[in-house]
Amino acid sequence: MTNPTAAMIVIGDEILSGRTRDSNMHYLAGELTKVGIDLREVRVVSDDAPAIVAAVRALSGTYTHVFTSGGIGPTHDDITADCIAQAFDRHIDVRDDARALLAAHYARTGSELNAARLRMARIPDGASLIENPVSTAPGFTVENVHVMAGVPSVFQAMVASILPTLTGGKPLLSQTLRIQRGEGDIAGPLADLAQRYPDLSMGSYPFQQNGVYGANIVIRGQDGAQVDAAMAELSALFPA
Amino acid sequence: MTNPTAAMIVIGDEILSGRTRDSNMHYLAGELTKVGIDLREVRVVSDDAPAIVAAVRALSGTYTHVFTSGGIGPTHDDITADCIAQAFDRHIDVRDDARALLAAHYARTGSELNAARLRMARIPDGASLIENPVSTAPGFTVENVHVMAGVPSVFQAMVASILPTLTGGKPLLSQTLRIQRGEGDIAGPLADLAQRYPDLSMGSYPFQQNGVYGANIVIRGQDGAQVDAAMAELSALFPA
Repeated sequence: MTNPTAAMIVIGDEILSGRTRDSNMHYLAGELTKVGIDLREVRVVSDDAPAIVAAVRALSGTYTHVFTSGGIGPTHDDITADCIAQAFDRHIDVRDDARALLAAHYARTGSELNAARLRMARIPDGASLIENPVSTAPGFTVENVHVMAGVPSVFQAMVASILPTLTGGKPLLSQTLRIQRGEGDIAGPLADLAQRYPDLSMGSYPFQQNGVYGANIVIRGQDGAQVDAAMAELSALFPA
Repeated sequence: MTNPTAAMIVIGDEILSGRTRDSNMHYLAGELTKVGIDLREVRVVSDDAPAIVAAVRALSGTYTHVFTSGGIGPTHDDITADCIAQAFDRHIDVRDDARALLAAHYARTGSELNAARLRMARIPDGASLIENPVSTAPGFTVENVHVMAGVPSVFQAMVASILPTLTGGKPLLSQTLRIQRGEGDIAGPLADLAQRYPDLSMGSYPFQQNGVYGANIVIRGQDGAQVDAAMAELSALFPA
């Protein structure tokens, strides 16, 4: 069985300028791995309409799902919704159901639903809304693209809203062995082992800190018994 | 004057599986901003040759510089050097100067320069080496692509080796105002301000934590006097 695949688009100059450290990528990667959706690619693009539209078109045609983060707030630099509409040649405008959500929210909190806030009710035709239990303004799904906020707490809540509605695959299982030997000593035996377990992936992630060095060897696969067997062999090759 | 542009390719299944949180992107973004090279796009791709080759070709044709991180160690999953050679249709093999560096290093440390370690001396024809003061095995530059290690300490050392050799631009200056108001209240005046300063970029980055909410407004540009003037107007609009 092949798992569904996914890509992510992180939208935001603040990541590319080094001002903000993105955390949504790491969060989404972990959540997708748990449900057996393989995250294959992430693109970080700037707040630039042609760049966003090109990434959406390229990735939505290649992967089962695309998840975006960022650019759906009320300010002038929030252009994601319009870019998604453009990528799929769809009309976009303030939609009644999204406006009703915002109207109720701002009535409750005593803020005015002004023109800027109303921008957050702009939803491409035919999209379904993604619930936002943190701050109400919804995300949305168009075809296979799930459009979510960049603020980590809101992004995470939207991921929790959307993930249970998607069909997952077999979760990827992994085991890690920390080996305090140079990668060059591990490489030969590891390559042999990898060749004998073609259904598993074996990665070597070197570390080097305060004069201690070595590598974490991660064995991943969908078949737990195979992962166990390969890890047992590896442990025998490199006893602690 | 237009600044040189850059893209980054982060290579590694360990990022996409959520096992490891990438830190090289944030580091490189900050360093490039300091020297006036505009990081426009980052792609995270898996340890998969066609994916790496496609990303290298697409980005090296679009941006002034491409920086890669990951996949140049001695293990079987380290395929970046071969992919770079393939992307540029260049021959690749163990190169004498790189082999000499490794031979001296392993003679010093008492480890064997075995077949796996020798893989780290595979350099595409015509590449120039990037010095690695941490663990010797070099990175390299082919055309406009700078190939570096994924281990953060080594990546950072290689960035320090290569950056002074590149022509920078005017550093991007930025100032930030933290406003404890809803983004929806800030959006209108901010959009007006942005329109009156077309050479500056103004970004709004909302936060929401423990019931306190608001947005950091970042004004960026190459002309410090303009950034100052716009920030003074913004501060007057939203006094603390």
